[in-house]
Amino acid sequence: MAQITTPRPAQGTLELLPREQIAFNRMADVIRRHFEAGGFLPIETPAFERTDVLLTKSGGETEKQVYFVQSTGGLANDREAVASGEEAGLPDLALRFDLTVPLARYVAQHEGRLTFPFRRFQMQRVYRGERPQRGRFREFVQCDVDIIGKDTLSVRHDAEPPATMHAIFRELDFGPFTIHLNNRRLLRGFFHSQGVTDEAQPLVLREVDKIDKRGTEWLREELTGERFGLAGEVVDAIVEFVGTRTSTHAEALEVLAGLEGRDEELDAGVAELREVLELLRHMGLPESDYCLNLAIARGLDYYTGTVYETFLDEHPELGSICSGGRYENLAGAYTKSSLPGVGMSIGLSRLFWQLMDNGMVSDEPSTVEVLVPLVADELLPEALGLATELRAAGLRVESVLEPAKMAKQFKHADRSGIRFVAVLGQRELEAGAVTVKDMVRGDQYEVPRAELAQSLRVELAQPVVTAAE
Amino acid sequence: MAQITTPRPAQGTLELLPREQIAFNRMADVIRRHFEAGGFLPIETPAFERTDVLLTKSGGETEKQVYFVQSTGGLANDREAVASGEEAGLPDLALRFDLTVPLARYVAQHEGRLTFPFRRFQMQRVYRGERPQRGRFREFVQCDVDIIGKDTLSVRHDAEPPATMHAIFRELDFGPFTIHLNNRRLLRGFFHSQGVTDEAQPLVLREVDKIDKRGTEWLREELTGERFGLAGEVVDAIVEFVGTRTSTHAEALEVLAGLEGRDEELDAGVAELREVLELLRHMGLPESDYCLNLAIARGLDYYTGTVYETFLDEHPELGSICSGGRYENLAGAYTKSSLPGVGMSIGLSRLFWQLMDNGMVSDEPSTVEVLVPLVADELLPEALGLATELRAAGLRVESVLEPAKMAKQFKHADRSGIRFVAVLGQRELEAGAVTVKDMVRGDQYEVPRAELAQSLRVELAQPVVTAAE
Repeated sequence: MAQITTPRPAQGTLELLPREQIAFNRMADVIRRHFEAGGFLPIETPAFERTDVLLTKSGGETEKQVYFVQSTGGLANDREAVASGEEAGLPDLALRFDLTVPLARYVAQHEGRLTFPFRRFQMQRVYRGERPQRGRFREFVQCDVDIIGKDTLSVRHDAEPPATMHAIFRELDFGPFTIHLNNRRLLRGFFHSQGVTDEAQPLVLREVDKIDKRGTEWLREELTGERFGLAGEVVDAIVEFVGTRTSTHAEALEVLAGLEGRDEELDAGVAELREVLELLRHMGLPESDYCLNLAIARGLDYYTGTVYETFLDEHPELGSICSGGRYENLAGAYTKSSLPGVGMSIGLSRLFWQLMDNGMVSDEPSTVEVLVPLVADELLPEALGLATELRAAGLRVESVLEPAKMAKQFKHADRSGIRFVAVLGQRELEAGAVTVKDMVRGDQYEVPRAELAQSLRVELAQPVVTAAE
Repeated sequence: MAQITTPRPAQGTLELLPREQIAFNRMADVIRRHFEAGGFLPIETPAFERTDVLLTKSGGETEKQVYFVQSTGGLANDREAVASGEEAGLPDLALRFDLTVPLARYVAQHEGRLTFPFRRFQMQRVYRGERPQRGRFREFVQCDVDIIGKDTLSVRHDAEPPATMHAIFRELDFGPFTIHLNNRRLLRGFFHSQGVTDEAQPLVLREVDKIDKRGTEWLREELTGERFGLAGEVVDAIVEFVGTRTSTHAEALEVLAGLEGRDEELDAGVAELREVLELLRHMGLPESDYCLNLAIARGLDYYTGTVYETFLDEHPELGSICSGGRYENLAGAYTKSSLPGVGMSIGLSRLFWQLMDNGMVSDEPSTVEVLVPLVADELLPEALGLATELRAAGLRVESVLEPAKMAKQFKHADRSGIRFVAVLGQRELEAGAVTVKDMVRGDQYEVPRAELAQSLRVELAQPVVTAAE
């Protein structure tokens, strides 16, 4: 007897059963469709990059999370070198930890063959060597849109990623959601106007970034404490500032107007944010779906202008489900060209897992729409012919190929989430008809065979109203 | 000045420009649509597997091509162990080298929650540490369909993968193609009937597998030579046998009938192949698109019954573009359950690269269908509103957001492969109309704004006839 290896997947990965995968794919399809509708072009990059390219810019934190890739031969050479006391460098290849570094490399590499502003979307898996824990994955799908300019990129483009993301979350329909906007120049300018030094700014910003998690009181203590030593009034102003969240478009414009005139950088940030808000309105976003939130800072040094985070209004505990911002120069590590950009990203695996965990998504019906049962063995050729007809008409069809009791075949459709069973028995064959059983509505009817595909397509396009509802 | 790292991708990967990626995605979408139409369910598995799971069954050849994955911490521990003279085992994780081993692990792991026959498709990247060379990739996309039975699986299912693949290659339209079928039992039975011993069989089969590359003469020499020492008549019979390729359904049945009655295993293979051929006919495949090819053996020991290879009739130099077969037990390494299956696979990256290399696919038009230009800066709100309207109607739209000469904006559409430019100037605004320029047909016309989306959709759904044609 051969030895059995326990079939386990790698830890920290999200592997789904088929009907969960169907639900995941439907979300991914919605995202892709709106990325395309927004005028973004698809690219894909290899899962691994050259280590020297991948780790060009990053500090120690990123490197700690990188997965290195070595072929069997590479590993053997590496070990030989180490065993003989040589200094071993990093392996040549590593798995990408985000889609931004590969985008930077891609744009720098293909610069001469791309049209700018370069509008790309990318939906691929990224890899992080994190300690496995609930909802933290070592492999997860990211869905990114970015617009990259050559030398310059108008702030007007900053309205495009949130408009596309808005269309996505509206269609995904997980309840009301709000895209929170802020601007790093506005933030920096404000702090400057409060006498917070340039050196202290990033540190204060980092503390401010924790306000949603730790609260206002904590922030006040932190900032008046030994480390920052800010005056009470300054802290009050900061606390009032970061507490600002608007609920209408007019209120947002009013808040912005109230901030103007104290600092040049602040005014520049106000002007940018005002323009983005106005464009979102022109693009038809309801004013309830976006707001100014002066507490949004985004941890990354990377961002220089507009920043975004998105929250489900009724599920703040999920945290931001889609975020991003404007950056000054995408690919300084790889090209002398100046490539400013703006983008947003959905961490789809994490979001999907959270939604499942919260009971907000569930198994979808099967992608298979029709089961063609085998009524009698001698009718197999007829059943196969029917399945072929339905497929040619664009339907998704499973054929039963082995004789089984009809009850068992219906049960198979029911358990698999296949909505229609299209029965072609001897009687139907003679009548030129097919008996359809609708497993969702629970009814049964006969349709002329020539009209079957069209009739099923009409049914599938309509919302189902069951007797129970 | 910061140092510049040359932006290079990892060697041996297929990275595409956006319009090549669009062509690739259109092929992938056709494949996915037909996999779904054929009643197959989607699954995805992580890119890496536990090394003990991945390498359970494989011999040295597979292991040589595996890429191992190590986190920074794992690598450091490994090197420390090696440096201190410890025996180092293999790293814990490795990238999958095909989709079959992950499928086996998946089915064994989730056995109790799957419905059998389990019909799955999977379109994901796999990784092989090959020496980079033209058309050989270290990362490539595979598209697999398989049907897995629990304990038994009727040979009837062997007709399903080729029927689905047929629908795919018909729609992809790379010219005439033929699915070649054979059966390993028929092969083994035939060789047995020729007195080729059980031990010699796999070796002779391996030689026979090379006939397409090395020719009949080489095979004859090899088999009568010292190594095999077969009699001349036996070799003649073998050469005639492996030279058998049919061109009609009737001829295939005739050949099969002529082989019967010499050997039990041969007869079993004949019966299986006959059933598969008959079902393909009932499924509506034209008889020109499949044939019996008794030379098809498939190198892998893995296959036990039906085997398939697919060739483009006018491009035999591409080799088999889609192959597979029947196997007795998918997951013997991971479960005591007997899981027979049948499947076929398209190596999409390789195929796409070959087609590009042969000039058989080219850049697709942009996914973006409409460019909304900016006629005058003060009309930006109107232009954004129009873009939003068109997107809501299901069109893919890029907006120009920065002022530029109209000629430059038209040129952008032209160079980007965007078909329509929808001009909303002051005049159009007052007339409630939009001027459409069709960049492909080269004509221009005015449409009432309320009818624009519908009118563009109709145009996009029709084949383009240009004046030049």
